Amino acid sequence: MAQRFKIGIAGATGYIGAELMRICSTHPNLEIAWVTSESRVGAKVVDEFPNLLGYVRDEFRQYEHELLGEVDAAFMCLPHGGAMDTIKAAVDKYPNTKLIDLSGDFRSPALDKWEQYYKTRHTAREYQTKFVYGATEFHRERIAKAQYVSNPGCFATSINLLLAPFAKHGELVGDVSICGITGSSGAGNKPSQTTHHPERGQNVRAYKVLEHQHMVECVPFLESLHKDNDFDLLFVPQSGPFVRGIFTTTFIPLNNNKSLATINEIVKQAYAGETFVHVVEGTPELRLVQNTNMAHLTYRAQGDMLVGMCAIDNLVKGGSGQAVQNLNLMLGLDESTGLMHPAGYV
Amino acid sequence: MAQRFKIGIAGATGYIGAELMRICSTHPNLEIAWVTSESRVGAKVVDEFPNLLGYVRDEFRQYEHELLGEVDAAFMCLPHGGAMDTIKAAVDKYPNTKLIDLSGDFRSPALDKWEQYYKTRHTAREYQTKFVYGATEFHRERIAKAQYVSNPGCFATSINLLLAPFAKHGELVGDVSICGITGSSGAGNKPSQTTHHPERGQNVRAYKVLEHQHMVECVPFLESLHKDNDFDLLFVPQSGPFVRGIFTTTFIPLNNNKSLATINEIVKQAYAGETFVHVVEGTPELRLVQNTNMAHLTYRAQGDMLVGMCAIDNLVKGGSGQAVQNLNLMLGLDESTGLMHPAGYV
Amino acid sequence: MAQRFKIGIAGATGYIGAELMRICSTHPNLEIAWVTSESRVGAKVVDEFPNLLGYVRDEFRQYEHELLGEVDAAFMCLPHGGAMDTIKAAVDKYPNTKLIDLSGDFRSPALDKWEQYYKTRHTAREYQTKFVYGATEFHRERIAKAQYVSNPGCFATSINLLLAPFAKHGELVGDVSICGITGSSGAGNKPSQTTHHPERGQNVRAYKVLEHQHMVECVPFLESLHKDNDFDLLFVPQSGPFVRGIFTTTFIPLNNNKSLATINEIVKQAYAGETFVHVVEGTPELRLVQNTNMAHLTYRAQGDMLVGMCAIDNLVKGGSGQAVQNLNLMLGLDESTGLMHPAGYV
Amino acid sequence: MAQRFKIGIAGATGYIGAELMRICSTHPNLEIAWVTSESRVGAKVVDEFPNLLGYVRDEFRQYEHELLGEVDAAFMCLPHGGAMDTIKAAVDKYPNTKLIDLSGDFRSPALDKWEQYYKTRHTAREYQTKFVYGATEFHRERIAKAQYVSNPGCFATSINLLLAPFAKHGELVGDVSICGITGSSGAGNKPSQTTHHPERGQNVRAYKVLEHQHMVECVPFLESLHKDNDFDLLFVPQSGPFVRGIFTTTFIPLNNNKSLATINEIVKQAYAGETFVHVVEGTPELRLVQNTNMAHLTYRAQGDMLVGMCAIDNLVKGGSGQAVQNLNLMLGLDESTGLMHPAGYV
Repeated sequence: MAQRFKIGIAGATGYIGAELMRICSTHPNLEIAWVTSESRVGAKVVDEFPNLLGYVRDEFRQYEHELLGEVDAAFMCLPHGGAMDTIKAAVDKYPNTKLIDLSGDFRSPALDKWEQYYKTRHTAREYQTKFVYGATEFHRERIAKAQYVSNPGCFATSINLLLAPFAKHGELVGDVSICGITGSSGAGNKPSQTTHHPERGQNVRAYKVLEHQHMVECVPFLESLHKDNDFDLLFVPQSGPFVRGIFTTTFIPLNNNKSLATINEIVKQAYAGETFVHVVEGTPELRLVQNTNMAHLTYRAQGDMLVGMCAIDNLVKGGSGQAVQNLNLMLGLDESTGLMHPAGYV
Repeated sequence: MAQRFKIGIAGATGYIGAELMRICSTHPNLEIAWVTSESRVGAKVVDEFPNLLGYVRDEFRQYEHELLGEVDAAFMCLPHGGAMDTIKAAVDKYPNTKLIDLSGDFRSPALDKWEQYYKTRHTAREYQTKFVYGATEFHRERIAKAQYVSNPGCFATSINLLLAPFAKHGELVGDVSICGITGSSGAGNKPSQTTHHPERGQNVRAYKVLEHQHMVECVPFLESLHKDNDFDLLFVPQSGPFVRGIFTTTFIPLNNNKSLATINEIVKQAYAGETFVHVVEGTPELRLVQNTNMAHLTYRAQGDMLVGMCAIDNLVKGGSGQAVQNLNLMLGLDESTGLMHPAGYV
Repeated sequence: MAQRFKIGIAGATGYIGAELMRICSTHPNLEIAWVTSESRVGAKVVDEFPNLLGYVRDEFRQYEHELLGEVDAAFMCLPHGGAMDTIKAAVDKYPNTKLIDLSGDFRSPALDKWEQYYKTRHTAREYQTKFVYGATEFHRERIAKAQYVSNPGCFATSINLLLAPFAKHGELVGDVSICGITGSSGAGNKPSQTTHHPERGQNVRAYKVLEHQHMVECVPFLESLHKDNDFDLLFVPQSGPFVRGIFTTTFIPLNNNKSLATINEIVKQAYAGETFVHVVEGTPELRLVQNTNMAHLTYRAQGDMLVGMCAIDNLVKGGSGQAVQNLNLMLGLDESTGLMHPAGYV
Repeated sequence: MAQRFKIGIAGATGYIGAELMRICSTHPNLEIAWVTSESRVGAKVVDEFPNLLGYVRDEFRQYEHELLGEVDAAFMCLPHGGAMDTIKAAVDKYPNTKLIDLSGDFRSPALDKWEQYYKTRHTAREYQTKFVYGATEFHRERIAKAQYVSNPGCFATSINLLLAPFAKHGELVGDVSICGITGSSGAGNKPSQTTHHPERGQNVRAYKVLEHQHMVECVPFLESLHKDNDFDLLFVPQSGPFVRGIFTTTFIPLNNNKSLATINEIVKQAYAGETFVHVVEGTPELRLVQNTNMAHLTYRAQGDMLVGMCAIDNLVKGGSGQAVQNLNLMLGLDESTGLMHPAGYV
C-alpha cells in the first residue's frame, strides 16, 4: 500500500490554494488533513468550490499554528507581505513540519530590493536563508534535503527556465529584454477593474512595466548559478484575454566569446531527461500546457541575439504544481507523483 | 447648418452612460452640455475613458437639478431604485426639460409587481404614468410627443421585439418559454465574482431563473398591445463568456385558431420598413449587431410551436442606442440620426 | 499489480480520439496498443499532439481490421455515416473484441428517422440492435454485459440526463422545449467558417434549429424508459464563443396528475449515489465541469412548468469520458477508474 | 452639398475589403460605385455581410480593368503577390484613377529582400517607385500629391509608429527587439488550423519568428527618415485569443550621445496635434482602439533602454482606416473624414 503523508493547505480559497486542493485530492501519497481560509471558516469546501464535488469533504478551518502539529507538511498560500510573520512563528513552533511557502516573502536574499519592489518592510529577514528557492530543475538536491522551500513566482518560473541554462554557464551578459503575457487567473480571486470581464475580455495591456517584483527573485537566482553572469533584466509584463497561462519571450544578447554551436549545445542539454520541461520544435503554445505542470520552450538565434520563448500554466508549473513537485522531492517520492495529467489538445 | 440641441448625461461613468457619451459625441444635432458622476467629480472624461480621446473635452460634474435648466434633454443613467427620487424632483423643478430615464424605475405600471421584483419600495408611484415606455418600434407616435420616456431594459428589448408582433394581434396565449444569454457588459462596470475574468472567461451559467425583473416591464407592455393576449413568460437568463450582446430564444405556442399562413404574414409585416429591426434568413448572430443599434430576428415553426430568436447589442439597442433613437423622435429629428454605424463583420 | 487491458483507438486524430488518448495514457488498467489515423499514418503522436509529450510514444497507424485481433477493446472514432461499414466488418471478423462506437451510426433503433436526419442511407441496419446505447447511468447493467456499446452524442447526453429521471416515471408528456449552447470543440478538428476564430470569438448563433440529429437518439431512449411517455422535443442548438462545454436548458411541462412533491422526490432520487452526475444548488456552470466527466444539473418549477439545466464537457462526459466509463463497466473495472480528475475552479 | 467621389473596392470579401465597405458606406464624401470578389460574383453584399444590412445595396462584381474608368479612386485588396500584375495593368490602362494598394506588393523598394521574405518573384519592379508608402503621419504631403499609395501592413504600422519618431532624428542605432501580438482577424477570412476556434480560443503562440515579411517595409521606411540610423529589427510575432488588435512592444537601445531629456522631447513632440495617434499616460489598451483608426503609444526608459508600446486595430489603423485616411488626403478632404467613430469603453 502506498505511503501516506498528511498535509495542510493554509489560505486554500485563493486560486493557488484551490489548485493545491485539486491536485492533492487525487495524489496517491498525500492526504489533506486540513484546509484553512480567513473568509470562509466553517464553510464546506464543495460549497465554495463545486468543482471539487466528489473529491473533497473538508470544511475550511481557521488557521492556527497548532494545525501544523498534525501534518507532515503544509503549503502556505498567504498574501505576499502577510506570510512572513505567520511563517516565522510556524518555523519556531513546529520545526518538524515541512513548509512550502507560495508567497513572495522568502524568495529573494536581496532583502533591500525586496522591500523596494514589494513596498513593505521585511519583518523576518533572518529566516530568509532557511528557505531553498524552489526552482525544481536547478535546485533538486537542495530541495530534497530542505525543510523549507520558497516556491518561485509564475512569471519568475518562465523567465528562470528560459535564462538559467545560459546562466549556469556564465553566458548571461548584457541587457536581457523580456515580454511576458499572463492570463487573468494570475491576478488572483479578488475582482478588480483590470480583471472585470467586460474590460478584460478582448484586451491586451501592460502593467508594472520595468517594475515587476519577480525580478527580485530572478536576478539573485540567475546570478547564483555562475560568477561570470553580468546582466540586467528589462521586463514588460502584459495581461491578455485568457484565463490560464504565461507566454514569455526573451531577447538574450549572445556572449560574443561563444560560438553558435556552443549555444546550441547548451540548449540541447538544458532540459534533457526532464519530465516537466521540454524544448520543442516550432513554437510553445499555451493550450498545450494549460492545467498541467509542463513547460514548453523554444530558442532561435539571429546575428548576435538569441530569442527564447516559454509557455507554462501560471497556476500549476507557476505555482501549485511546482509546489507539489517540490514536496514530492522533500518527501522522498518520485517528483512527478500526482502531476501526470496531460493537457487537452483543445 | 444643422440644428443643435443641448443634452446632459447624468451618471455617465456607467457603461450605458459611457455609450451615450460615445454616441452623442459624434451625433450631428446633439451637443453634450454636461456629464455627471458621483464617483469621478472633477476628473476629465478622457482620463477615465481614453477611448474618447479626441472626442470629448468635458469634466465630470456633480449632479444637481439646476443642470437640467441648461439643456433641452437629459439622459438619466442612475441606479435602479435610486433614480426615482431624483427624477421625481427633476420633473417638478424643470418640467421643460425632456428626460429619458434608463433605469428600471418607470418602466412598468405594475407597481406592486415592480416592488416585488426590484425588492424595494416605489417612492414615485404617481409619476410612473408620465413616462412613455420607449419601445421605439411600437410606441413611435407617443414617444414623438412625450416629455418623459422610460427606456426599456436590455433583455426586455429582445423579448419585446420577438413577442410584440404576435401580441399586437392578440396571438400571445399560453406559456412562453424564453432563454436569453447576455454578455458581461450587461452586469455594469462594477467588478464582482460573476464578472471576474478567470471565472467568466470560458463559463456559461444561469441566474435569476424565473425571477428576472425585466418580466415586470415585458408583461404589461405585451398585454397592452391587444386585449386577447393571455400568456405567462418563463424566462431563464444566462450569462456567457463574451462582452457585448444578448441572444434570446423564445418558444411561442401557436394559437390554434390561426393558420401558419397567418403567422408567416405577421412575421413578414412585423418589421417591414424598419431601419433597426430586421427579420433575417438563417440565424441572427451577435457579432453582426455588436456595437450597433440593430436587432436581427428569425422565426421557425414546428407543429404547434413557433421558435423565435433575436440578437441585439445589450448596451446599444438594449440601452444607449434605443435611448438616442427615442430622443431623436422627441426632438423631431430623423430617428436614425447619429446611429448609422454598421457593425464590423468580425 | 493492476490488471491490464489492451485497447486501440481508431480515428485518433479527431478531438474525441485525442481525448481518449489523453485519458487512456494515464488510466491504470488500460494500455494503448495502437492508434490509427487516415491522414497522419506514420507520424508520431507527440508531433501532432504535443500536449501528450511524455505520455504517448506511439505512431499513428493505418486502420485495418487485423488490429482488432491485438486488443481487448477498441474505441471507434470514425465519421458519422462512415463508421457503420467498418464496424459491420469488424463485428463479423473479430467478434471477441469489445467495441465502443463513438459515431452516431448505431445510437438509434429509429432507422428511418436516422436516415432522414443524417441524410444518408443506413447500410448496417441489422447490426444496430447489437449495440447497447451507452447512457451509463441508465443502462449500467446492460453495458456491463455488452460486447458493443454505442456512445451517446454530446447534446444528447445533456438532454438525456435532464429528461430521463422523469421519463423513467412516465412523466414526460407534451412539448419539451430545449436550448443548448455548445463550445467550438463540438464542431470537430476541421476548420470551417463557423469555427473561424474571428467569426466565432465573440459570437452566439443558432444552427440546425429543430433539425438536430441527436433527437433521433434521445426520443427512442426516453420513450424506452416508460410506456406512458408521450412527448415532442423542440431543440434549438446554439454555438457560443468558448472551447469546451455544453449548457442545456429544458422547459418541461409538468404532468398535471402529479404533485410538486412527487417531482421534487424524482429529482432528489434521480442521481443519488452517482459519481459523475450531481444535482446542485444554484446553477450549473461550465467551468466547473470542463475537462471532466462530471455533469451538474439543477431544476426549478414555476406554475405548471419545470425548468432543468445541465452543464457537461462535450468532449468528456459528452464523448470520451463516458466512453471510458462504459468500457470500465464492460471490463469489470470500477466505473470511475482513470476518470477522477476534478476541474480547475478557473 | 458635400462633394462626392466615386470609389471602387477590388477584393471586397476579405476582411480588409469588408472593413472598407463598412467605412465607405457612411463616409459623407465617398460613394461606392462597385465592389468586386473572385468567389462571390453576383451575390448581394448583404447576403454575405449581413452586418451591412441597411447600408450597402450592391452586388459583388467580377473585377475587370474597365471598372477603373468609372471611379475616381479604387482600393485594391488583392492577395500579396497576386496584386502586382493586376495593378501594373491598371496603372497602364487607367492612369487617371487613384489607387490605394492594400497588398504588400509595393511597400518596399528593397525588392530583393521582398522576394526573399514573400517567397515569390516580383513581376512589377519598375512600378514600385510610383507608389508612396502610406505611413500617413510621416508622408502626409507626399500622399496628398500621390496618384498611387501603398498602404502599410498592420504590424508594420505599429512598429513604424513606435520607431519613426526616433528614426526621424537619426537615433535608431543597434538591435531593436520587438514583440507583437495580433488578434485572429489578422489572418484573414480563410479558416485554418491556427485560427480554428478550439485551438485559438485560449491560446498564445509565436509564428514567423525573426522572419516576418513586414520587416521588408519597416527597415527601408525607417532608414529613409535619417541617414544616421543604423539598426537591426528582431521581431517576434505572436497570435493571441482575441479578434481585433495588435499590441506591440519595442526595446530600443538609447543612443548614448543623447540625454534622456532629448528622448523625452522627441516623444513629446512626436505626435503632437495628430488626430489618430496619441501618446498616453499609463498603458495602451487594445479595447480602447478596437474598431477605430486610433493608435495609442507609451514609452518608458530604464538605464540605456527605452521601452515603447503601441495598440492599434489591425484592420482599421493597420489597414482600411489608414487607407481611407490616405485617400482623404489624396482627394483634398480632411484627413479624418468618415473615420471619427470612437471605440466603446468595453
